[in-house]
Amino acid sequence: MGDEATAPEAQIHPVILCGGAGTRLWPLSRRSFPKQFSPLAGAASLLEQTARRLDASGFAPPLTITAEPFRFVVQEQLSAAGVQPAAVLVEPEPRNTAPAVLAAALWLQRTASDGLILVAPSDHAIPDAAAFRAAVAEAVPRARAGDLVAFGIAPSRPETGYGYLEVAEGAAGGGGVRGPIPLKRFVEKPDLHTAREMFESGRFLWNAGIFLFSVEAICAAYRAHAPEMFGAVSRALQDAEPDLGFTRLAASAWAEAEAISIDYAIMEKATGLSAMPYSGKWSDLGDWNAVWQEGEPDGAGNVVSFGASAIDCAGTLLRSEAEGVALVGLGLRDIVAVAMPDAVLVADRGDAQRVKEAVVALKAQGAVQAERFPREHRPWGWFESLVMGERFQVKRITVKPGGSLSLQSHHHRSEHWVVVAGTARVTLGEEVRLVPENESVYIPVGTVHRLENPGKLPLVLIEVQTGAYLGEDDIIRYADEYARR
Amino acid sequence: MGDEATAPEAQIHPVILCGGAGTRLWPLSRRSFPKQFSPLAGAASLLEQTARRLDASGFAPPLTITAEPFRFVVQEQLSAAGVQPAAVLVEPEPRNTAPAVLAAALWLQRTASDGLILVAPSDHAIPDAAAFRAAVAEAVPRARAGDLVAFGIAPSRPETGYGYLEVAEGAAGGGGVRGPIPLKRFVEKPDLHTAREMFESGRFLWNAGIFLFSVEAICAAYRAHAPEMFGAVSRALQDAEPDLGFTRLAASAWAEAEAISIDYAIMEKATGLSAMPYSGKWSDLGDWNAVWQEGEPDGAGNVVSFGASAIDCAGTLLRSEAEGVALVGLGLRDIVAVAMPDAVLVADRGDAQRVKEAVVALKAQGAVQAERFPREHRPWGWFESLVMGERFQVKRITVKPGGSLSLQSHHHRSEHWVVVAGTARVTLGEEVRLVPENESVYIPVGTVHRLENPGKLPLVLIEVQTGAYLGEDDIIRYADEYARR
Repeated sequence: MGDEATAPEAQIHPVILCGGAGTRLWPLSRRSFPKQFSPLAGAASLLEQTARRLDASGFAPPLTITAEPFRFVVQEQLSAAGVQPAAVLVEPEPRNTAPAVLAAALWLQRTASDGLILVAPSDHAIPDAAAFRAAVAEAVPRARAGDLVAFGIAPSRPETGYGYLEVAEGAAGGGGVRGPIPLKRFVEKPDLHTAREMFESGRFLWNAGIFLFSVEAICAAYRAHAPEMFGAVSRALQDAEPDLGFTRLAASAWAEAEAISIDYAIMEKATGLSAMPYSGKWSDLGDWNAVWQEGEPDGAGNVVSFGASAIDCAGTLLRSEAEGVALVGLGLRDIVAVAMPDAVLVADRGDAQRVKEAVVALKAQGAVQAERFPREHRPWGWFESLVMGERFQVKRITVKPGGSLSLQSHHHRSEHWVVVAGTARVTLGEEVRLVPENESVYIPVGTVHRLENPGKLPLVLIEVQTGAYLGEDDIIRYADEYARR
Repeated sequence: MGDEATAPEAQIHPVILCGGAGTRLWPLSRRSFPKQFSPLAGAASLLEQTARRLDASGFAPPLTITAEPFRFVVQEQLSAAGVQPAAVLVEPEPRNTAPAVLAAALWLQRTASDGLILVAPSDHAIPDAAAFRAAVAEAVPRARAGDLVAFGIAPSRPETGYGYLEVAEGAAGGGGVRGPIPLKRFVEKPDLHTAREMFESGRFLWNAGIFLFSVEAICAAYRAHAPEMFGAVSRALQDAEPDLGFTRLAASAWAEAEAISIDYAIMEKATGLSAMPYSGKWSDLGDWNAVWQEGEPDGAGNVVSFGASAIDCAGTLLRSEAEGVALVGLGLRDIVAVAMPDAVLVADRGDAQRVKEAVVALKAQGAVQAERFPREHRPWGWFESLVMGERFQVKRITVKPGGSLSLQSHHHRSEHWVVVAGTARVTLGEEVRLVPENESVYIPVGTVHRLENPGKLPLVLIEVQTGAYLGEDDIIRYADEYARR
């Protein structure tokens, strides 16, 4: 939270959009664990970096909106960033950005109706946080005056992957312009020819999907341009249920809200628009080509992560995300190679936008790698499968301090647990015992059991499952402190 | 062994050269487990395919010569091929092919002095075994007459990766020539210009490194052209020690033999040379480009193995050798990508000959992947590390039926064993007990223990090691049925 006290009327309420599940960064980004949760650029995850960037004087605690499966990861990563959110809104299903921003605006209307909203995607790279906050501060007066302010990036190339903001002649020329400027219109992603023309004209900025406006102005805009959505989202929020610190929007009303972006639903129709140019470094990390660009290529144009080696390569991104896997590139030109424990992508960098096709092809083959991340996150920690054999599986399980798995039993498998770090509290039928490092415990088929970490350090255990059926759905839950069904 | 009785004087004694440790097929081929032991082309390993190819009427049991670390793998794979070798000679150190062939010839001189020797590399692909044996049969009369017969492959391209045999005008033109023809000279690997000239002249065959000669003729040739080597290898064989079915050549004498190929030491100097053209399919699988060629590229020129997917690729080899790893190629042109559990190579196919550089670079970084294979083979079976953590390691261990690990203890680690398939006999201090599937046993630090598989099926167990030091060298052996030191 803020590093000095500020008057309540000056507060900017960040709304962190955290429900996206893009696949263009497969195999790093998957439906079950999308890119905002990964340390794609830097040591912390993109969400953590976003939360830290907005954790400063003048900013209220952020409101976060995410999808059901990600709620615990959001909570965990905000906590890792040292940020306590004002609320975490849970979308029953993804409906794109327009309903999400509206839900946040209506939530804020209750408690901060005179506040400003900063819409912040959770999956962008903006390395210079101070410069970004300064730009936000510059935009405040216009937002307070009732304008909808869209942040625009001074373009460095004729990019076809972004939408554009058209501004006045010369205003998009670079770092010279300060303060918000009139915004003529939003332009959709162009073809290369149009992108070149726009780039050369100096009248266009990249649309970063970052907006600043008052609660009052944006609510009025939704009421004017998307009245049906306004009604549906209002009801979804009205009937929302509080649940372990999350606010679950009501599913039936939410489903009535049109799935559409805020650009299409509001910005392209609204009046009173301003653009706030931002000349600092920014990337939406939208595909592997963008990640390569963001990675600051060396003299030969290569970006080579830890665990990878490039021999006589150029224009190439080599990234090993798999513990203990050496990735070597030899004689490559403009190639992207990404190694994960369960999947390897090798693509021409020019085909980065087509990575979705790989995901579609894998899905058609029934490959779990298409959508599932090798490390499965749970509210109590995470696990990963080390080996899946015939009638057995080995997992590594990490339980956070204070974490507790549900009280459960299995029909088809027995489990051997060997504690390799920390201390476990194990419930086995009527008995409860502590199992320290280098001790093991056996869970026979059908026995009701629970695993907890009562300690101050992470608990790591190796689980060996044996049985004829080893699916995650062979579980009967008797009690769960995270209210999972 | 042969499928019909043959007169002893007609016998051909295959000498399978099995000591090579090439790195141009890294990460599949490594110093600790080179390519002849891998199923690089087809379901069986190249050594198994070689042994089966020569297991027919007219062929005596093969003599195999290999390096110390590979002796048990050789024994195991010959057994899998259903072939009982006449002997397995163990080289104390690698000295190239000339001393190896001589050691085999001298060994045969004792028992089959009137026999023929067929020198057979263990790591080539020769899919049509019958055609190959027919070619050998055709060459027998010239070998029996005292010629040294070199097998030559009708070239299909101006290859710079092979040595050549110069023969008479038109003789190398293809499948037309039958029977051995006079061999003018051996030619070293040419540059591309020379290779083109040789290819067009029709007077050159690829030198396959396959030879047929009588024991008498080759011994005479060594005596004439390499008398010092003849003396050294004679002494190495004279002082050889039998050891669990292996014949260990004497190290000090062996070290005196010059490390040189049979081509340089003998063939380039000898007279009475013949070439036996072979027009069937052949590959030395010398680099990934050769593996791609051998793999019969599809219409787009791709060779895509199980577990890999190619989207809009051309001229590309995609190969996943890692259980459960999906390898996807997108928009690639002439790329080789090979995924192993611990290493991934992505190379331009034109740089296939430079893969050694990758190995050198990894070795300089101290990466174990440079030389060690992820699956470690032992006389009793094999193991692989599933995860190496701080103060713990998880291994999967497979013990062959009848296999027995040494009676051992460790100073720094304790071990948890969970049996997931088969039944183990476990010695723990004074106690011996059977541990069936889904049971576990704990081996405290310092306790003398042994693991055996008394059953008829493979024994698979998951071992969880814990301790401050987990190196393979923390082992005290009290007894070992494989006489390892």
